[in-house]
Amino acid sequence: MARYTPTIGRLIAELAKLPGIGSKTAQRLAFHILAQPSEQVRALAEALLEARQTIRFCSVCCNLTEQDPCEICSNQARDRTMVCVVENPRDVAAMERMHEYKGLYHVLHGAISPMQGIGPDQIRLRELLARLRCDDLIHEVILATNPTVEGEATALYLARLLKPAGILTTRIAHGIPMGGDLEYADDVTLSRALEGRREIG
Amino acid sequence: MARYTPTIGRLIAELAKLPGIGSKTAQRLAFHILAQPSEQVRALAEALLEARQTIRFCSVCCNLTEQDPCEICSNQARDRTMVCVVENPRDVAAMERMHEYKGLYHVLHGAISPMQGIGPDQIRLRELLARLRCDDLIHEVILATNPTVEGEATALYLARLLKPAGILTTRIAHGIPMGGDLEYADDVTLSRALEGRREIG
Repeated sequence: MARYTPTIGRLIAELAKLPGIGSKTAQRLAFHILAQPSEQVRALAEALLEARQTIRFCSVCCNLTEQDPCEICSNQARDRTMVCVVENPRDVAAMERMHEYKGLYHVLHGAISPMQGIGPDQIRLRELLARLRCDDLIHEVILATNPTVEGEATALYLARLLKPAGILTTRIAHGIPMGGDLEYADDVTLSRALEGRREIG
Repeated sequence: MARYTPTIGRLIAELAKLPGIGSKTAQRLAFHILAQPSEQVRALAEALLEARQTIRFCSVCCNLTEQDPCEICSNQARDRTMVCVVENPRDVAAMERMHEYKGLYHVLHGAISPMQGIGPDQIRLRELLARLRCDDLIHEVILATNPTVEGEATALYLARLLKPAGILTTRIAHGIPMGGDLEYADDVTLSRALEGRREIG
């Protein structure tokens, strides 16, 4: 690490704690920030503090929100019979961008990963189970965790818990992405695409 | 852009203004920040504000500093007869890391780039010329701008100004990097390496 003044060193160290930001990038960011007008730096600092202070977890779906329950949970126009289970708030944003799903969500904030020491208790699974116990309206749980080892394990774990409880439990489809090319699809995706084939015409 | 609450949206927008941070990375950073303990977020915000408030330009060498003149300029043990001209503060840090150069610096904060509308007046060239006029001790100016089109143009521009003034003006060597491989060196580097050959043994 190069010698900088203590203040610059501290800024670089704080920036380097962010995910995906190494010490080189942190240095580049720090010097960019120092070259910005004061108001610009203040705007960033305030956005950080304000976001951290005002954002909390929705007591219903565990998504990040400014109001509790969140906008989606308190929207009476949404379909209250289905809950889409996702790993994180970005997934909710991706689903909402599509403008097609009108049901509710549940955000797990992670996925089960024994390798990283993340078990069912480290993610917001208990909240989902409590919610399903209390809310009689819900009759379908759509498992939309990522098609990764962790996401699949989480989906399977949830499916095994929910099916005996008589709740319709579905998994989103995996296969060749639209515009994708069979030739370049990996084996797992291809086998999933074949497995999930449907009659057409 | 996905729909987020206004506070999260603002944080993402502020983060996305940083260089090399696109909207996807800004989202990832924002959600990471929201998941951090408050003290951690406050530490980052404070490091930002403190750095921007306490860091200024050294009135001698234009490097970023907390004290004026900077640590290097006010260090009487440094060799005051040579000034190494670099493009930015990171270059000073890189030179210092080497622990071999004992002279002074001048930070231009950029390089001449007509394509980007950066002329000699947009970088700290005038400060260097004024400094050389006033300081009789300096007898060598080492041009250590980057071996890019802009860095080369800046070095050439400076050399043409300084040589007539009777100041020894040198350029750092360019060639095959240590541990590098001739086979993989680009043509320009190779031609520079050949041009800069020296007698050995």
